[in-house]
Amino acid sequence: MEGEPLSALCSPALVVDVDKVKRNTQRMIERCQKLGVQLRPHMKTHKTLECAEIMTAGLRRCIVVSTLAEACFYADHGFDDILYAYSLPFDKVERCAALSERLGLFQVLLDHPDALEQLKQRPLKCGRQWHVWLKLDCGNGRAGVLHSEPEALRLAQAIVETEGVELTGVYAHCGNTYNCRGVEQIQAVAQETTNYTLQFMKKLNAVGISCKSSIGSTPSCSHPIDDMGKLSEVHPGNYVFYDVQQSGIGSCSLEDVAVRVLTRVIGHCPHRNQLLIDCGWTGISLDGAGKLPTGYAVIEGHPDLKLVSMTQEHGRVEPISGPLDYSKYPLGTLLMLIPYHSCATASMHPVYYVHSEGRLLGKWTPTRGW
Amino acid sequence: MEGEPLSALCSPALVVDVDKVKRNTQRMIERCQKLGVQLRPHMKTHKTLECAEIMTAGLRRCIVVSTLAEACFYADHGFDDILYAYSLPFDKVERCAALSERLGLFQVLLDHPDALEQLKQRPLKCGRQWHVWLKLDCGNGRAGVLHSEPEALRLAQAIVETEGVELTGVYAHCGNTYNCRGVEQIQAVAQETTNYTLQFMKKLNAVGISCKSSIGSTPSCSHPIDDMGKLSEVHPGNYVFYDVQQSGIGSCSLEDVAVRVLTRVIGHCPHRNQLLIDCGWTGISLDGAGKLPTGYAVIEGHPDLKLVSMTQEHGRVEPISGPLDYSKYPLGTLLMLIPYHSCATASMHPVYYVHSEGRLLGKWTPTRGW
Repeated sequence: MEGEPLSALCSPALVVDVDKVKRNTQRMIERCQKLGVQLRPHMKTHKTLECAEIMTAGLRRCIVVSTLAEACFYADHGFDDILYAYSLPFDKVERCAALSERLGLFQVLLDHPDALEQLKQRPLKCGRQWHVWLKLDCGNGRAGVLHSEPEALRLAQAIVETEGVELTGVYAHCGNTYNCRGVEQIQAVAQETTNYTLQFMKKLNAVGISCKSSIGSTPSCSHPIDDMGKLSEVHPGNYVFYDVQQSGIGSCSLEDVAVRVLTRVIGHCPHRNQLLIDCGWTGISLDGAGKLPTGYAVIEGHPDLKLVSMTQEHGRVEPISGPLDYSKYPLGTLLMLIPYHSCATASMHPVYYVHSEGRLLGKWTPTRGW
Repeated sequence: MEGEPLSALCSPALVVDVDKVKRNTQRMIERCQKLGVQLRPHMKTHKTLECAEIMTAGLRRCIVVSTLAEACFYADHGFDDILYAYSLPFDKVERCAALSERLGLFQVLLDHPDALEQLKQRPLKCGRQWHVWLKLDCGNGRAGVLHSEPEALRLAQAIVETEGVELTGVYAHCGNTYNCRGVEQIQAVAQETTNYTLQFMKKLNAVGISCKSSIGSTPSCSHPIDDMGKLSEVHPGNYVFYDVQQSGIGSCSLEDVAVRVLTRVIGHCPHRNQLLIDCGWTGISLDGAGKLPTGYAVIEGHPDLKLVSMTQEHGRVEPISGPLDYSKYPLGTLLMLIPYHSCATASMHPVYYVHSEGRLLGKWTPTRGW
């Protein structure tokens, strides 16, 4: 396979432009160095060893994961300083304890006193401490204690006062940047999240508590504000691939998107003015429904085409307007889909095909499950 | 794990009730026997060896697959008489040839003269014939030659006249039953598809061609019409699991659905009147958006709750009306999601957990990719 062109691949296939991955990664590293903040890249988008190696500049240290399966996968392959940034699930406490006892630094996250109680009931062996991040909701509206609520401070104090448990940091995810359009709006959310987090850190300091702080999302970290330099860490993830959604938000340009789904024309349907392609929702996911004028994806080099619907293994493509010129798309024609949401698209593929300038270099195999 | 209750599983997890699988399968086998039609079950919903074994009543013969990866997986494990029911993809001709030369009976499908040309250019070794099904579109509006178009007959004749190629059958998928509500509508579509197919078979007979015929979808095969007994085969697949979509169509009752996604409450958000669960779109898929009053799934035993939105690893659940009683849902509470579309949900899981009456029996591992 090595050295062959992308057209040698069977479709559908997720292809990764390693040069763009390296460029996106290098830019993020440089932005963080300039800000003076530690980058803790998130692995959830790709879940591969190779990409993690690139994102950590070969160090294999200081990463965030979204599932315990990722944590185990990276731990099994020599990674360390792993933050499992997910409100402590009570069914996985024993597995978290095992990782805490085995790694140099495994960190969990919580946002409820009951979770702290779970840790208390499972003291770590050999005098080890649970390393805990407190999850704050700074306006994102998903997990976390509301930054403005007195419980937040009370929970931080309870963590500090609990034997065998250490408050490592305060963690906020500014996922509300995904509703932004353009740098100004992104930076307004980044500023607000940073302000709330730093205000909370002051409250902690006032009661004699000091620990790390971290916020992050790909939009905010692609256009950071100066005050983010006052934080300890940031934790973006999607930037490694980017996608059409991120280009719409303003995090990147479409040229920065490092992934494509390679697909082929497998049918002509002149009575419906449509083409069939061999990519259904198993190949690109249903994410982005109704969000783009070109349907579920952007078809590279064909802004006049729309991926209007999909079933398990078929996609229906039609012109945005006018009749389809079938002579331009003989059966077997290769098309490249730029995903709306690369996290969702990547999650559908058991293997990624990596290339440089269209020449295949090899395969990356992600981990899956929980 | 064996013998343990479902609550021993980490979540999210896809759990399969093997008794319901066997019951759904047995009923389909009996319906087909009564009709006098050969059942060729479709593997696309589950993609496991164990389920294929049950669906073929232990024979490991006479199956349909949606991807070549499935075909290879089943061939590697002793299955034979495999129909790859997907418009011949030009990038996979060589792999199809290899399977045709290796198995007792490997069958492909096509709906375009260019595909026949591809087969002609790759004659099989050892005097073997390509076994080809002609795909007809009988109103479904996806792949296939329109049944009413003269090209359909011309293509059948061309297949018959091509050296090294044999016309094995005519294949139609009545996926348009998915737009039905109730048995009457399902049977109207089944009748129409059967009529069109049998009319086409008559046209073939009139020019001296005889071959098999097959139609199928889970709705039509769950409520077959008598005339389907005049066909050679039927090829449903989803019935092995069924799902909320099928119960809404009228193919089954909700009690027949054999799969659940086990999930747990991981967050309380009283300021939003919401719960967080540990199942996002990686656990249940985005299929069914906007289709159900209860959101992306039915939460078993909790008809008052709605899965309103999901991100990669989080689901937001809220009451359909009124305030949430959090005392009923402490952190760690187990909930069971009944999937809208079991094909889409199963495709997100690297492993399925199988149980009988809530006691775990083991794991099934599906194949993935193309």
